[in-house]
Amino acid sequence: MLYQVVMDVKIPRDLPEDERTQVLAREKAYSQDLQRQGKWRHIWRVAGQYANISIFDVQDNAELHQILSGLPLFPFMEIKVTPLLRHPSAIRDDDS
Amino acid sequence: MLYQVVMDVKIPRDLPEDERTQVLAREKAYSQDLQRQGKWRHIWRVAGQYANISIFDVQDNAELHQILSGLPLFPFMEIKVTPLLRHPSAIRDDDS
Amino acid sequence: MLYQVVMDVKIPRDLPEDERTQVLAREKAYSQDLQRQGKWRHIWRVAGQYANISIFDVQDNAELHQILSGLPLFPFMEIKVTPLLRHPSAIRDDDS
Amino acid sequence: MLYQVVMDVKIPRDLPEDERTQVLAREKAYSQDLQRQGKWRHIWRVAGQYANISIFDVQDNAELHQILSGLPLFPFMEIKVTPLLRHPSAIRDDDS
Amino acid sequence: MLYQVVMDVKIPRDLPEDERTQVLAREKAYSQDLQRQGKWRHIWRVAGQYANISIFDVQDNAELHQILSGLPLFPFMEIKVTPLLRHPSAIRDDDS
Amino acid sequence: MLYQVVMDVKIPRDLPEDERTQVLAREKAYSQDLQRQGKWRHIWRVAGQYANISIFDVQDNAELHQILSGLPLFPFMEIKVTPLLRHPSAIRDDDS
Amino acid sequence: MLYQVVMDVKIPRDLPEDERTQVLAREKAYSQDLQRQGKWRHIWRVAGQYANISIFDVQDNAELHQILSGLPLFPFMEIKVTPLLRHPSAIRDDDS
Amino acid sequence: MLYQVVMDVKIPRDLPEDERTQVLAREKAYSQDLQRQGKWRHIWRVAGQYANISIFDVQDNAELHQILSGLPLFPFMEIKVTPLLRHPSAIRDDDS
Amino acid sequence: MLYQVVMDVKIPRDLPEDERTQVLAREKAYSQDLQRQGKWRHIWRVAGQYANISIFDVQDNAELHQILSGLPLFPFMEIKVTPLLRHPSAIRDDDS
Amino acid sequence: MLYQVVMDVKIPRDLPEDERTQVLAREKAYSQDLQRQGKWRHIWRVAGQYANISIFDVQDNAELHQILSGLPLFPFMEIKVTPLLRHPSAIRDDDS
Repeated sequence: MLYQVVMDVKIPRDLPEDERTQVLAREKAYSQDLQRQGKWRHIWRVAGQYANISIFDVQDNAELHQILSGLPLFPFMEIKVTPLLRHPSAIRDDDS
Repeated sequence: MLYQVVMDVKIPRDLPEDERTQVLAREKAYSQDLQRQGKWRHIWRVAGQYANISIFDVQDNAELHQILSGLPLFPFMEIKVTPLLRHPSAIRDDDS
Repeated sequence: MLYQVVMDVKIPRDLPEDERTQVLAREKAYSQDLQRQGKWRHIWRVAGQYANISIFDVQDNAELHQILSGLPLFPFMEIKVTPLLRHPSAIRDDDS
Repeated sequence: MLYQVVMDVKIPRDLPEDERTQVLAREKAYSQDLQRQGKWRHIWRVAGQYANISIFDVQDNAELHQILSGLPLFPFMEIKVTPLLRHPSAIRDDDS
Repeated sequence: MLYQVVMDVKIPRDLPEDERTQVLAREKAYSQDLQRQGKWRHIWRVAGQYANISIFDVQDNAELHQILSGLPLFPFMEIKVTPLLRHPSAIRDDDS
Repeated sequence: MLYQVVMDVKIPRDLPEDERTQVLAREKAYSQDLQRQGKWRHIWRVAGQYANISIFDVQDNAELHQILSGLPLFPFMEIKVTPLLRHPSAIRDDDS
Repeated sequence: MLYQVVMDVKIPRDLPEDERTQVLAREKAYSQDLQRQGKWRHIWRVAGQYANISIFDVQDNAELHQILSGLPLFPFMEIKVTPLLRHPSAIRDDDS
Repeated sequence: MLYQVVMDVKIPRDLPEDERTQVLAREKAYSQDLQRQGKWRHIWRVAGQYANISIFDVQDNAELHQILSGLPLFPFMEIKVTPLLRHPSAIRDDDS
Repeated sequence: MLYQVVMDVKIPRDLPEDERTQVLAREKAYSQDLQRQGKWRHIWRVAGQYANISIFDVQDNAELHQILSGLPLFPFMEIKVTPLLRHPSAIRDDDS
Repeated sequence: MLYQVVMDVKIPRDLPEDERTQVLAREKAYSQDLQRQGKWRHIWRVAGQYANISIFDVQDNAELHQILSGLPLFPFMEIKVTPLLRHPSAIRDDDS
């Protein structure tokens, strides 16, 4: 089941540099692991923003929440979730 | 080059039924043709809305505008464009 | 899987009276049928508004969309969908 | 009498860890006690958010306020209250 | 139980003059009858607006909705409801 | 002359406890004194919010500002002012 | 007593040309008469908008409302009212 | 050339008292000097707000910016600028 | 003197086709004439929108308003004006 | 390819003075270097704001993002990006 998720990142200025480096490294590993599993299907950077637009393919709302609330950057993000489904005009097999 | 495009459709109630049927058929053909060309890369329906979230892969802003302004439903849509690029954490080859 | 759906109804003034009566009757039957099936789990009126707040329990985003887009009042509604899940503090068995 | 209440939680980053742990434990106990009394009738987590959507069944506005302003997390929440009533199409006995 | 209700009136330009006159007369009678009963406790005009701010004193959300949805101008109003209660600093006996 | 005033209170978390206690005590005394003078005609708590909705009856804009800017909690409040007048349908003598 | 009033004009396209001409002529006469009386103290056009920003000097909220609701263009305007008073740094005698 | 300028002041709570006193004194002197030069033509306090609405009469956008960015309170203000011009119905000589 | 002007065009669906063609032709001629005079310095299409972002170089607010209110499409546009000036970091001679 | 970029600058008050001076100097050098390369085609100050409106001419979304995210003031800016293209009525050769 598909969801569009928009993540705006606002890391506080007073986060110690090493903590910042670590959280970003963990975020990257966490994201890439989920991408490899096929659950975080797409991730794009928004031009000019510290933000991404992503597509998740998970079993249900609960799994989506478990993944998002487990993001290392979760406390520093504003997140918007939009539930998606196959569009009747879609021709691509994997867009559902 | 990638863009997210969100399209909200509001077809006026007084559009004659056959005109409505025709414009929807032309919209579908137009969309599927661009999907086959690889320019309209993804299209998903937003749950509960007469709206879609799409990803376009075109040469530049001008081509994107030419495609969007040529949509048969263009006069009945509210459109939001977000320019995208490859995310540094992306692992999928075709997400850029 | 649970979703909160908020529906704001704006029936156009120029809808013929009998059409209005019929669409409202069909809406009521449609809603009650889904309530009996357990898919439209709760529906409440918002005080002072021609609007309701509902809880749906369906299989996935696609089924939710099928139900909502099939509402007889769908063309006259503004709809907001919020995906829900069990809260860690919930004690009621059927709130998930 | 029923109310929908949306609670967005924003715990400040500089709240000491033990204080945070304590306030969350007290919040959970407080919520579950009210759920057992039948006053906090439903509570759901919003997917991707540190937020919940709840239904309260209390005697009047004053009791609702007493409960909400007594929440251990009250100082860290943004709260929206929507008064509800039985919907004319509702079939479930306890949705009022 | 008290509620603040803000009513913005937008009567459509194409409402026939006599229908307009009648609906306004019925609105006034309806409002004054409820004021006499003590249920519509206060009503003030907002300066420069075709709008009023009112205080209702009714038994519960259901009665409030029954009154508001019965307003002759209900189809032409945008309504906002705010549930109120006695303020701990209030000294006036009848502000609760 | 009447005004509706909405006051949202946001006391900063780092205000020392005794300062907080004092400012709240002064606020209560200040409000009750003005209520006794008949200038702060009504005050209600908004359910679920640290906010009030009040009606002031003062000589002019200048007196209203003098009162509001003198509120002990003024630096911690967001205030909205709406000028009111007697509604043509009002029957209560003192609603003007 | 002073108020800033912002008026946005939206004359409906289907207003007959002569009715439009007449209402604009009446609006101008109405405005200039009040300017001559000193009640409509200032009026400026907003660049690029069919809108004006005005300063009124009237006795009270009721007189302001009587003037504004009597504007020939009142049914075609969106109006915002801001109550003003003398600024402590003002040096001009007539800015209060 | 005329502009309406709205200034909302938000002085941070941790600004040392003497710094606050000094910046306010400098602001007042700065404002009154410009009023005397005829460039800051009007200034009014907004009732209930730490804000003012002002009218500037300057040579061009650049001079307006030089004046506004030189305000001692500039770092603590939110500013909105609206370019104005003579209204065709204005009768007062100096409203342009 | 420079201004950014954003123009959103919403031509009503019931405008007769020939009237539409004529107004668009007049708009184009009007715009190009002002471009040749150097007053409408830049005009760009916004991708995906029936909108443009333009830069005007005119003598004052009054001339800007005269030009904008004379646009053949003025009644069908939503316009936003932002006064500009030379940026201290600009190196291009004609950006002021 | 052209983009309009709006940058609102909010430098935190507690940034040490020398750090502030340095970041502003680096910002200016960075901007002027890109202006000389023709990539940052225009930059204007917004009157009354610590903000600029700029036009970028870059190869694609990725280059735009690389430039914007490399701005020394990037962590202290709110940025809005609007993709542009040649307007059909444009006469100036270099507006595309």
